[in-house]
Amino acid sequence: MTHSTPPPLGVAVIGAGYWGPNLIRNFRSSPDWALRAVCDLDVARARQVVGDASGCDVVADVAQLLERDDIDAVAIATPARTHRGVAEAVLRAGKHVLVEKPLADSVEAGTAMVALAREQGLVLMADHTYCFTPAVLKMAELVAAGELGDVLYVDSVRINLGLVQPDVDVLWDLAPHDLSILDYVLPGGLAPGGVSAFGADPLGAGRACVGHISMPLAGGALAHVHVNWMSPTKIRQMVIGGSRRTLVWDDLNPQQRLSVYDRGVDLGQTSVLGQAGAERRDAGISYRLGDTWSPALPEREPLMGVVTELAASIREGRAPSTDGAAGLRVLSTLAAASESLAADGLMVRPQGLTVPAPRQAVRSELESVR
Amino acid sequence: MTHSTPPPLGVAVIGAGYWGPNLIRNFRSSPDWALRAVCDLDVARARQVVGDASGCDVVADVAQLLERDDIDAVAIATPARTHRGVAEAVLRAGKHVLVEKPLADSVEAGTAMVALAREQGLVLMADHTYCFTPAVLKMAELVAAGELGDVLYVDSVRINLGLVQPDVDVLWDLAPHDLSILDYVLPGGLAPGGVSAFGADPLGAGRACVGHISMPLAGGALAHVHVNWMSPTKIRQMVIGGSRRTLVWDDLNPQQRLSVYDRGVDLGQTSVLGQAGAERRDAGISYRLGDTWSPALPEREPLMGVVTELAASIREGRAPSTDGAAGLRVLSTLAAASESLAADGLMVRPQGLTVPAPRQAVRSELESVR
Amino acid sequence: MTHSTPPPLGVAVIGAGYWGPNLIRNFRSSPDWALRAVCDLDVARARQVVGDASGCDVVADVAQLLERDDIDAVAIATPARTHRGVAEAVLRAGKHVLVEKPLADSVEAGTAMVALAREQGLVLMADHTYCFTPAVLKMAELVAAGELGDVLYVDSVRINLGLVQPDVDVLWDLAPHDLSILDYVLPGGLAPGGVSAFGADPLGAGRACVGHISMPLAGGALAHVHVNWMSPTKIRQMVIGGSRRTLVWDDLNPQQRLSVYDRGVDLGQTSVLGQAGAERRDAGISYRLGDTWSPALPEREPLMGVVTELAASIREGRAPSTDGAAGLRVLSTLAAASESLAADGLMVRPQGLTVPAPRQAVRSELESVR
Amino acid sequence: MTHSTPPPLGVAVIGAGYWGPNLIRNFRSSPDWALRAVCDLDVARARQVVGDASGCDVVADVAQLLERDDIDAVAIATPARTHRGVAEAVLRAGKHVLVEKPLADSVEAGTAMVALAREQGLVLMADHTYCFTPAVLKMAELVAAGELGDVLYVDSVRINLGLVQPDVDVLWDLAPHDLSILDYVLPGGLAPGGVSAFGADPLGAGRACVGHISMPLAGGALAHVHVNWMSPTKIRQMVIGGSRRTLVWDDLNPQQRLSVYDRGVDLGQTSVLGQAGAERRDAGISYRLGDTWSPALPEREPLMGVVTELAASIREGRAPSTDGAAGLRVLSTLAAASESLAADGLMVRPQGLTVPAPRQAVRSELESVR
Repeated sequence: MTHSTPPPLGVAVIGAGYWGPNLIRNFRSSPDWALRAVCDLDVARARQVVGDASGCDVVADVAQLLERDDIDAVAIATPARTHRGVAEAVLRAGKHVLVEKPLADSVEAGTAMVALAREQGLVLMADHTYCFTPAVLKMAELVAAGELGDVLYVDSVRINLGLVQPDVDVLWDLAPHDLSILDYVLPGGLAPGGVSAFGADPLGAGRACVGHISMPLAGGALAHVHVNWMSPTKIRQMVIGGSRRTLVWDDLNPQQRLSVYDRGVDLGQTSVLGQAGAERRDAGISYRLGDTWSPALPEREPLMGVVTELAASIREGRAPSTDGAAGLRVLSTLAAASESLAADGLMVRPQGLTVPAPRQAVRSELESVR
Repeated sequence: MTHSTPPPLGVAVIGAGYWGPNLIRNFRSSPDWALRAVCDLDVARARQVVGDASGCDVVADVAQLLERDDIDAVAIATPARTHRGVAEAVLRAGKHVLVEKPLADSVEAGTAMVALAREQGLVLMADHTYCFTPAVLKMAELVAAGELGDVLYVDSVRINLGLVQPDVDVLWDLAPHDLSILDYVLPGGLAPGGVSAFGADPLGAGRACVGHISMPLAGGALAHVHVNWMSPTKIRQMVIGGSRRTLVWDDLNPQQRLSVYDRGVDLGQTSVLGQAGAERRDAGISYRLGDTWSPALPEREPLMGVVTELAASIREGRAPSTDGAAGLRVLSTLAAASESLAADGLMVRPQGLTVPAPRQAVRSELESVR
Repeated sequence: MTHSTPPPLGVAVIGAGYWGPNLIRNFRSSPDWALRAVCDLDVARARQVVGDASGCDVVADVAQLLERDDIDAVAIATPARTHRGVAEAVLRAGKHVLVEKPLADSVEAGTAMVALAREQGLVLMADHTYCFTPAVLKMAELVAAGELGDVLYVDSVRINLGLVQPDVDVLWDLAPHDLSILDYVLPGGLAPGGVSAFGADPLGAGRACVGHISMPLAGGALAHVHVNWMSPTKIRQMVIGGSRRTLVWDDLNPQQRLSVYDRGVDLGQTSVLGQAGAERRDAGISYRLGDTWSPALPEREPLMGVVTELAASIREGRAPSTDGAAGLRVLSTLAAASESLAADGLMVRPQGLTVPAPRQAVRSELESVR
Repeated sequence: MTHSTPPPLGVAVIGAGYWGPNLIRNFRSSPDWALRAVCDLDVARARQVVGDASGCDVVADVAQLLERDDIDAVAIATPARTHRGVAEAVLRAGKHVLVEKPLADSVEAGTAMVALAREQGLVLMADHTYCFTPAVLKMAELVAAGELGDVLYVDSVRINLGLVQPDVDVLWDLAPHDLSILDYVLPGGLAPGGVSAFGADPLGAGRACVGHISMPLAGGALAHVHVNWMSPTKIRQMVIGGSRRTLVWDDLNPQQRLSVYDRGVDLGQTSVLGQAGAERRDAGISYRLGDTWSPALPEREPLMGVVTELAASIREGRAPSTDGAAGLRVLSTLAAASESLAADGLMVRPQGLTVPAPRQAVRSELESVR
């Protein structure tokens, strides 16, 4: 987009386990970045991931990264309970941070991380990878442009036969995806009036393997998230019902991932004038059965969008489109869900939700989608 | 099945509106029944439904039915708030009763109806039509035969662009279907430990148009029902996850309505022997990826099954497979859902749940399915 | 559409078997028509179809219809081999004719019928019911408006577990649907340069139970029709590939029957300028991956469109949109297919194809679709 | 399976273009093979594919491979027109050969290759990769076990938006897949009584972009293959209709790739006894609507099956399951299709078809599938 390419920024990746190799691969193939080092307690594993042909160091100790001048940013792909400690050390060393989801293992920890990044004037980005898929970018564009009208309800289903995780339940394993997408797509970010969660552990696995989260949204809308590790059929679907149109995202249908239905229920204007209240309102209800439209979407690796946005936000001195505050909103909602789960679905109000900053990145991202 | 056909029983239908004509048509074509009369305040409408060529009377007043000796049973297809009054009059006149869903508009009313029928020694049957579809009969058979193992979770989705009802919300309009099916299929009938419901009325229609019901079941299982009048896509799907197999019922896929997946998550036996508790348990988890099987199902009108079972239960002096108690379990669960809905999803324990009697009818029904 | 409703035309239906009852029902509920009589050798069957409450005569002999002044048109729903004889008698009696598909059992018979109707100045309409479905009307509109560009290929599949017919093979049973749709939708009507057909009778049923028809079309395009009585899965799908867009009609997907894909292969203009012929052409090929669009379609009984068009063409003194010539084009193509089938797929040129008259009815039909 | 692992065989790959890298990757990760060399005129490309960390030579000239003692077999992944020359040189040097599909660019060339391999007593294997997918292995097993009964028809569709190839038409590009699968699955191999092909080039690309092949099979069955480069929707589906059951393979449905339908048309025995011929036969036709069954299939890279079978056939001194004769049957059928295509679909009898040897490998392969 710019005519003179700036020199690449230096980056290190901490954690060469499940997700680290993907980060490493994308930082390597990005013109924005030079991968300087990979850090993992298991040096042999890290070395294998890095491979032979590489100008990239392998280290076992985070401290070895902090003093280096050629490292501008650090990506943290370690377990959630370690995020705060590592991120704070990196931020104090004056380096920008990208953190895997969830941002941290407690709202307190996440809040401290966000505050420290703000104090230091550094970028803290949450790796909400789904928010960089062409489908979610298009969904956010359509909602922001008013194509759906007011959001009336959201229904998100993410179920399959999944690995029962040793340390987290199905809510913490899968729902961060749904919540980070909601945060990105909803006009005011993820700001539920309350969170009610139910789960079950019928296998006796020691943690919930199926979960349902209900969240009242502004304007009387309702969002619901259904996650399940035990389903023999795999579904990844999100419906955003709007007053004008309804959007269905079926992530497992590559031939038609996104469908926009010009169908819905209308409350006629006459109902407002009626004197008999509810009785008259019903008379004003009608149905639209319009066309369906499925926008073309490019096939693109979303993680490349993450590393590109990280570089852009550092260079432009602005918040990334999925910043620490976004990660904190997801974290607060998850924490509220856990509290509700333990209290038979009692409605819990998430703490520390903040209004998202106006997003600039979306527009430029979307241009490149086209 | 029997070689000498018994003479038909006499029946009257009260209410010639939405559902009444279907009852009338099925009573007429059943060899078990002789349709004697149709009763509706709107006599002209009733006459039109009955048609010219008929030995069937049209009356405007229920009282005209009660004294007749040639009427053994009365089917009530009037609004729910009238069910108790009409049913009690009919039962006191010594006639058997078939009532549309829901059984009544309050648990108190339903309880009184069930008690009166028991006192009188008469059949009170709930018209849970879905329980007479080949798919639900087969589901009940598979669960009863242990093919699924223990039920771990149930997920039922019933969404489409539906008429906003003038008098009831989406829970009372659509969820009776899901709940009556659960009552029929689950081994111990519908007996949730509690009911938590969320709904939303983002259109300002005066009642919930989208709703979610969560219900903990015995043995740590969880049932969830999702109903929605505002969905541009139509889904009618129920998943019953079991410890051995999982069943998916997709009612809108005539080519493969029922699929039984021999897939799932196993907790190995070794986990029980482990000393380190949860840590060891994880090690024992494994996955089965077995075959999928889709049983052939006949195409058959379920309402004919309803009127056949009504006649059989009267003749055999036994409870029908969807008796008043079943209707009352559904009603109690709905009432608890409404109470929870008004209290932000607070878990409410349904009143007056009773254990279903051992079902004899299923077996014979199933024989005829084959 | 017009403000003063004209008096209804009188009609008689000959043949009360498989399709006759549908014609009877639609003529009865149409304001354009008064059903005067039904004629069937099996008078009892005809009487049952007509019912009690009717000002409609039941007769056994066609001759009884011909002299009546109150009958303007006759619909013929008898076996194909009888079409010519009945239609000629009716036309000679000065009455208009609607004939079931296929028009006749030989090209000679069909040609004679078309000629006689023209001589008599009467309407001869082929009951190509599919051409009055909202989907086919929309397809014809899109093709006529140039939305697809030039037609490059057509692929039609109509397979299911079907009744092996006693008198006709699968080509004559099912392919008339596909061919009549092609005739209606293709800009110049059904005008294949040749017909090659293959079939098989692996069951030994005495006639082909699976068949394939290949037809070169103008401009280098190719149409293919696949029909099968032995398929366990039911498919009714037609693809019309165009130089601009491609249309897919999936008649068994009520939620998205018609999809218009803005995808395709482009031959760039530069290829024409290239000097190396084919080699350069390849360089000019590119792919479009645009949006998909699914137009909303009303749910409407197509046979009502047939009887409405029959009345309109009689009143306006014009050819109906599926006139005898259209029926003859389908018949000629079928006859050529049979000849090819018997000669190992030898390419056979159909006889007597005529160019369709400019269609006026489409536009008005389409208005009412919206 | 065996307890003592034999030392690996040495292999070289010729051609590092489109398919070569896949061969290289699989030979490398197979315990049966040691990759000794990669040969490509474009040495730089070959070096990039091989990578740094490798005990594998990169050469530009086939001659450099022929003299080496540490190379037992050579895989040829060059354009089809070069296959004969390269394969003959390799066979004459006493090495076994694996050739990409199609075996050669003419029946004459393919015949010569098969003859030379037989003379030399060396393995000549066709890389029919699809025949090593779990789905095709299972299909072959089911057909061989008689689960489908007699094959009545085969319908194969392979369409998508594909790259218009510079040197071959859509038949030669896509149909080898369908034909090699048919050869593997049909009891007697690919042995059509004739081949009739139609194609079209409506884009003016210089070669057919859509094609249909019809092939009468033994016993009155019919096989049909439909290939298309211009379809906006992607379909890869094969139906094998049998007298007992019908199998549908939908390769793009990972959740249910293979479905076995216990549905079909039966010709009853009574029909044979009837005296009125065809009329009586119809009376004997009935329909079965039984269960559907979808066998579980492992996810496995088929090319690994290819290199494993190549090693096994060399070690056991037997023909591989997709030997040169199989490649030749596919090639002969393609050549006949091309001849038919140029003659308006004239039925052409393929030359040089040979009966396949009894297959031993299938059984062992299938064991490992389970």
